[in-house]
Amino acid sequence: MFEPPVQRLIDELSRLPGIGAKSAQRLAFHLLNADEVDARRLSDAITDMRSSVHLCARCFNVTADVECSICSDPRRDTTLVCVVERVQDIPVIERTQEFRGRYHVLGGAISPIAGIGPEQLRMKELVGRVDDEGIEEVIAATNPTLEGDTTALYLARLLKPLGVKVSRLASGLPVGGDIDYADEITLGRALTGRQEL
Amino acid sequence: MFEPPVQRLIDELSRLPGIGAKSAQRLAFHLLNADEVDARRLSDAITDMRSSVHLCARCFNVTADVECSICSDPRRDTTLVCVVERVQDIPVIERTQEFRGRYHVLGGAISPIAGIGPEQLRMKELVGRVDDEGIEEVIAATNPTLEGDTTALYLARLLKPLGVKVSRLASGLPVGGDIDYADEITLGRALTGRQEL
Repeated sequence: MFEPPVQRLIDELSRLPGIGAKSAQRLAFHLLNADEVDARRLSDAITDMRSSVHLCARCFNVTADVECSICSDPRRDTTLVCVVERVQDIPVIERTQEFRGRYHVLGGAISPIAGIGPEQLRMKELVGRVDDEGIEEVIAATNPTLEGDTTALYLARLLKPLGVKVSRLASGLPVGGDIDYADEITLGRALTGRQEL
Repeated sequence: MFEPPVQRLIDELSRLPGIGAKSAQRLAFHLLNADEVDARRLSDAITDMRSSVHLCARCFNVTADVECSICSDPRRDTTLVCVVERVQDIPVIERTQEFRGRYHVLGGAISPIAGIGPEQLRMKELVGRVDDEGIEEVIAATNPTLEGDTTALYLARLLKPLGVKVSRLASGLPVGGDIDYADEITLGRALTGRQEL
């Protein structure tokens, strides 16, 4: 319906997650009407990111160097590793300023339905790091979902025999939340995990 | 928080309409994990569109030529022009296969609140076309909103003195809709515009 270059951009935009045909059309026309420099900046940002960024050789975080800024920071505790599902989970944990160890990005969680087993995740690389880096504790910071819980249990079974302490992020009530609005599973976990004052 | 090239892409994506900080982050990580060729294709589609597409010299539709495919189609009725607010309205009307004239893209609608008056729209260009092309009827296909209605009335006042018939798209019940769910303004217009059977 549209001129071929416009239609091609609409098609490419609608391949992005969460962008439907209508949004893709709106975005394409926004880019058509935007300043030439703005459109060019977006196009360049995509190309630049792809050419300059890759995965950290140690923890699989994104980095422009061989190792990411966290792995190469000498003040980080190398005996403590936080295992996350995805790269974008790292800045969320960093923002708490409560964690001073390193990370390990698994690349997902175990999900038999999606056909993702431990061999599709970076488990072997983690075991390799336990030996090489003298890791003493692993925090399983996978999502509090069925898949994340399964992955955390798998990590515990995999690493405990190697003498590594494996812990899991606490489940419970979100701070600032209301007990009235808590679902029964979360509230149940908050009860089980209650802390003496 | 992220590596500079990733953060730059997130920033550029969040400048797009309807894309918030969280969506921009999700899209950036999708592009980071996507195939190199897929990311490159999106980047190229943006650049290609900007370099190969511009506005039709006659009707301001988008085109890769001097005039768009509709204006240069000899089977089109040149005495009938459909005035739309935006380029993306043209394919919607084309899909009805009920219109065989040409178009004129105003570039918006009159909106005193947004500071858009007739001089910000392509009114002068439309008046020029009336003389040059022997236009006999103009269909105001602006949106059925306050701004679109105002623009349609302005078009009528502007063009009727030049001997041009000005009509407006009918307002009424959407086909397949339910009278129960119609708002009172739409239903009111459907009553006023009722057609004898």
